[in-house]
Amino acid sequence: MNGIIEEVEMDQWRRTHFSSEIRSCSENDTVIVMGWVSSIRDHGNLHFIQVKDRIGETQVVAKKGDCPDSVLEQIQSLKEHSSLAVKGRVRLQQKSPTGAEIVPVELKVFSNARNAAPFMLQGKRSSIGLDIRLDLRAVDLRRNILQSIFRIRHTLLSSIREFLAKEGFLEVNTPKMIATATEGGAALFPIFYYDREAFLAQSPQLYKEQLTMSFENVYEIGPIFRAEPSRTNRHLSEAISIDTEMAFADYSDAMQLLERLIFHVLDSIRKNNNDELNSSEIVLPNIKIPLPRYSYDQILESLMESDENVRYGDDISPQALKLIASKLNLNSFYFITDWPASIKPFYVKPNSKFEAKSESFDLMFGPLEISSGSTRINRKLELVERMRKQGLNIQKFDYHLKVFDYGIPPHAGFGVGLERFLMSITGLENIRDASLYPRDIDRLAP
Amino acid sequence: MNGIIEEVEMDQWRRTHFSSEIRSCSENDTVIVMGWVSSIRDHGNLHFIQVKDRIGETQVVAKKGDCPDSVLEQIQSLKEHSSLAVKGRVRLQQKSPTGAEIVPVELKVFSNARNAAPFMLQGKRSSIGLDIRLDLRAVDLRRNILQSIFRIRHTLLSSIREFLAKEGFLEVNTPKMIATATEGGAALFPIFYYDREAFLAQSPQLYKEQLTMSFENVYEIGPIFRAEPSRTNRHLSEAISIDTEMAFADYSDAMQLLERLIFHVLDSIRKNNNDELNSSEIVLPNIKIPLPRYSYDQILESLMESDENVRYGDDISPQALKLIASKLNLNSFYFITDWPASIKPFYVKPNSKFEAKSESFDLMFGPLEISSGSTRINRKLELVERMRKQGLNIQKFDYHLKVFDYGIPPHAGFGVGLERFLMSITGLENIRDASLYPRDIDRLAP
Repeated sequence: MNGIIEEVEMDQWRRTHFSSEIRSCSENDTVIVMGWVSSIRDHGNLHFIQVKDRIGETQVVAKKGDCPDSVLEQIQSLKEHSSLAVKGRVRLQQKSPTGAEIVPVELKVFSNARNAAPFMLQGKRSSIGLDIRLDLRAVDLRRNILQSIFRIRHTLLSSIREFLAKEGFLEVNTPKMIATATEGGAALFPIFYYDREAFLAQSPQLYKEQLTMSFENVYEIGPIFRAEPSRTNRHLSEAISIDTEMAFADYSDAMQLLERLIFHVLDSIRKNNNDELNSSEIVLPNIKIPLPRYSYDQILESLMESDENVRYGDDISPQALKLIASKLNLNSFYFITDWPASIKPFYVKPNSKFEAKSESFDLMFGPLEISSGSTRINRKLELVERMRKQGLNIQKFDYHLKVFDYGIPPHAGFGVGLERFLMSITGLENIRDASLYPRDIDRLAP
Repeated sequence: MNGIIEEVEMDQWRRTHFSSEIRSCSENDTVIVMGWVSSIRDHGNLHFIQVKDRIGETQVVAKKGDCPDSVLEQIQSLKEHSSLAVKGRVRLQQKSPTGAEIVPVELKVFSNARNAAPFMLQGKRSSIGLDIRLDLRAVDLRRNILQSIFRIRHTLLSSIREFLAKEGFLEVNTPKMIATATEGGAALFPIFYYDREAFLAQSPQLYKEQLTMSFENVYEIGPIFRAEPSRTNRHLSEAISIDTEMAFADYSDAMQLLERLIFHVLDSIRKNNNDELNSSEIVLPNIKIPLPRYSYDQILESLMESDENVRYGDDISPQALKLIASKLNLNSFYFITDWPASIKPFYVKPNSKFEAKSESFDLMFGPLEISSGSTRINRKLELVERMRKQGLNIQKFDYHLKVFDYGIPPHAGFGVGLERFLMSITGLENIRDASLYPRDIDRLAP
């Protein structure tokens, strides 16, 4: 009320308890909690302050007479979102849902909030436009639903690594600044690399393939960059890709690895994020493995039965995928396998018996592609031939082709789009909410 | 001898055993091993082939009469580095160090080696120039020493994540394509971002600071990009940075976290990479925590005593750091603390009592900087003031400054250069060998 509270340093103060630990204290214990003010209710001489930390919330109750006047004075000027420390005495409260509250003895405000956030913190769906939220993303991320999403994302990442390490995969990092486009020239971000032109990597594809000759099974979780001009709810210009590659394996091995990985991830999230799933009403898909497998031919036939205008050899459009998902009642994970070789990248291995088909798959979630994988070509001449057919400049791939002279093993792998995966299993409507700071054709900040 | 062996598909063959598992088989068990040929000895009618997989090596012994003539014929044309599968019978061998060998029954060569590698696989230090090795990096990575280095690197990464997760840190990923330089304009790679100019992130600094207001403790392990014109053995243009940021903490908390993290990493490598440490004769540093701490002032005094031409307020040159490391016998980890505020980035918090000093530290390994950390400024006005002093365009940081209106907590953190850390503890001479595919001013491929 009386203006701005003096902002002070932490000095020797440190948090003694998280919000969730207060209920385990004894009556009158002195505690220090730290966090930010998620709500204030002012009843004249009685103030209720919710202090939120990364574990949960605790209630601070300041009543005239119960706590120093100086503290009451501070509280009268306190604003939501301010960061602070409260030193106080624990008062056990059987009735309250948290089981205890804190009577403040001393307050340190570290940083006052100057503005009210233009959106509500509790609602699952914000009625406010996405752009307003993204402009103030760090504040937006205090919202309960996003807290849940990014804690689930943490589990997703750690459970993938745990699973792959057990399967003998080595973690690698490959360069993001590259001399030549991996998959032809489309949708690349050019860089000035000292005095030369270079590009941002669209995928670690060729590097991870090379590494199978030295480490057999490798994985990388890192950024990929695609200069797509799309403005859809499922495209990002910068995304995190979960890439695996395994030696002495083909695409059926890769599919089995992928479905087991997804099973493990869902299981880990159920075990580790029960609170987030409940509080944010997120219902994870229940899957059984093996996941359903449909060949490209089966999908095409089904589309043709529905009088869709599709031709053998064409890619399947997003519209057609929607139709298929709804017609075949596919609202969870399934594979589409054995795509035409002509629409797959040069490194994808054609089927040795039916050359027009390739040993490839897409993992779908409903109508959304989550992952793409295949057996890869491991013979130089075959690879050069495919590159020539696709009109690529073979000389530019010399750095890659030459390692094929040293016994590269048969190999297969896949890449999973992390944000699409997270979006699918948590039911997010827009992929931008699966990224902390999304990038797209219109957005380069914050 | 008779030219090239026919290359075939895997078809239904799958590996039944790793090399290390052969010794646990019974005599005459039929096994399939897969890998690449690391050496061949030809004694006329007797051939010894070492087949290497990601676990180890196994010996295949082909003697005329013992195995089909067709297999002997294949073996006569076999080249080192080729990838293959050997189906054979186990022969237990008490005398041999591996305890068993394989008598081949059928051989599938997947991919013939066309060339001999221009370097030896066994030696710890290759006498061949680094550039020749890097040009054929995927083959170079088959060398024992690099196999060890990158398996240790895997443990390093997983043990850091394990440690930080236990400490309540959330894993995050922040954008690598950014609108504004974080630390002023030097050493940036520019990008064409659709129709705009953008840059590659030199560090996740401002993003990780913002995220303390929503998640308190966060970490990111990801690429950073620095267009440094250096040609030293300790600079890369693209490196992996281990970044942490914690709320309600200052630089002394950050130092304690970092030294415990390093202790945990070394401990994990000792536990998980015993074989690699032994076979590659890598001696990890023994450390005790707390690590030694020297203030900038102490270092300066010591340099002045040695008649070094240094001035208070200057950065400490690599030469001076070498002198100090040797003079004070600092050949392992130690901190240099409390640097002059004027030579630290704008977000580093000046000491509240001595404004010319900052709450900052560098973690050193001998003369090499491994990490840099500090308490950060968490008040907008103070931050703007510091930016102004350093001549930064404040408008360009609007996207960052505006979240400081919403109660950002006191926070501190550090970034560790992964390759420098790995190089230091394993005794590598050149940072390029701590990266799978290094990037520098001269190298953009493979």
